[in-house]
Amino acid sequence: MKRFFIELSYKGTAYSGWQVQPNGPSVQQTLEEALALILRREVPVTGQGRTDAGVHALKSFAHFELEEVPMDNKTLTYKLNRLLPQDIAIHRILEVQPDAHARFSAEAREYRYFIHLGKSAFLKDTALQLYRIPDLEAMQKAAQYIPGEHDFSSFCSARAEVAHKRCTVSQAEWRQDGRMLTFTIRANRFVMNMVRSLTGTMLEIGAGKRRPEDMPLILAALDRTQAGENAAPEGLHLSDVIYPSSIFISPEK
Amino acid sequence: MKRFFIELSYKGTAYSGWQVQPNGPSVQQTLEEALALILRREVPVTGQGRTDAGVHALKSFAHFELEEVPMDNKTLTYKLNRLLPQDIAIHRILEVQPDAHARFSAEAREYRYFIHLGKSAFLKDTALQLYRIPDLEAMQKAAQYIPGEHDFSSFCSARAEVAHKRCTVSQAEWRQDGRMLTFTIRANRFVMNMVRSLTGTMLEIGAGKRRPEDMPLILAALDRTQAGENAAPEGLHLSDVIYPSSIFISPEK
Repeated sequence: MKRFFIELSYKGTAYSGWQVQPNGPSVQQTLEEALALILRREVPVTGQGRTDAGVHALKSFAHFELEEVPMDNKTLTYKLNRLLPQDIAIHRILEVQPDAHARFSAEAREYRYFIHLGKSAFLKDTALQLYRIPDLEAMQKAAQYIPGEHDFSSFCSARAEVAHKRCTVSQAEWRQDGRMLTFTIRANRFVMNMVRSLTGTMLEIGAGKRRPEDMPLILAALDRTQAGENAAPEGLHLSDVIYPSSIFISPEK
Repeated sequence: MKRFFIELSYKGTAYSGWQVQPNGPSVQQTLEEALALILRREVPVTGQGRTDAGVHALKSFAHFELEEVPMDNKTLTYKLNRLLPQDIAIHRILEVQPDAHARFSAEAREYRYFIHLGKSAFLKDTALQLYRIPDLEAMQKAAQYIPGEHDFSSFCSARAEVAHKRCTVSQAEWRQDGRMLTFTIRANRFVMNMVRSLTGTMLEIGAGKRRPEDMPLILAALDRTQAGENAAPEGLHLSDVIYPSSIFISPEK
């Protein structure tokens, strides 16, 4: 058996999320159907994790296995891109070690949340549009409490079924470029709705409804009801997944 | 009578172009209908020029006149943005001299044509996606023949009804940023399909079907059949319109 990583991006607007769901097409299912058509067999695909409905990926990874490989990686990439809808793009396919796993081998993930100040004619599906200018300095201050190892129970959906909610955040910061605000967060793992609820809470701080100093108190409460609402899914983009280079057999990466 | 400039952007995908057309909604008509609803009278709007169906504007201008002004410019901007669809955004409204004209007062216009190298999950409507990497150096060489005053008959639709096709181009260049190629062109005026046919011709040069040195020969031929096909409308964005600052009464701009 040979194992391969697919590096891909997708615009999540038309999908029920990454994971196969009863309510509408998922990115995973769309990808599995395209692989099955090209390779003429069932090809289960395992993603780096789940993304919610309407959430995007600028760079994500999934793995699959093949007994026999009927074409080279570039040809398969080309055929997949031709067959897949316009909102899923395959960047490349890389052979990996047989025990490499798109989810469990990942050392870190990075998300970006985009907020456009004012109406944008172009960003309906890919950024939150905010009419009132928030206090970016207060949001920056609040973000400084996020890095480190914490139990993120206050920022995790009650629906999440996970053994624990501890995550180690290595980066959490806001940047402004013209009328675009970007929150970038990198961690070893994320729990369900974590980035959206952190962003929603910081937006309440930016609107003056809470103070930056409330952030550590909310974190310590370990209670989802203490944090703010989830920010809308359309602003959220999975922007990177980091793997140890030793898992890649192909010369690239 | 007071005269106002509207600075706006629009995603042209859903429109038959700027100008009121029989075949589908235009940006102009959509804007006039919103102004009429808010101001409770007919408000004809004059744009900086036309854009084709599917072509976008990152920054454009239009003017209108009012006998009485029932609200300030910020309030009108806010109300327009609330009423207009998501793909038209009003940046601001500025009072101008009574003889200022969105089309005739313009000293220069700038267009950008975006080309993404490879498939993009996000840019279906706003960039041309090119699977074969073109020879950018050859396209740069070809672009160097464009600046100056020329008769652009070879790059103008035969349908155009204009007194003459002379334009003075002050800038024409390609840039690459990652996988995005951008052609930027600035001129005192543009004739119909000029940027799309220039881009289409340079793409043929980039694909090795013509040489950069063919560019001055095509220009000199004054014959539309000598140039290449129009590049697809979705890659084209009107990016700026330049007016003398003396026309603006408002303190801004």
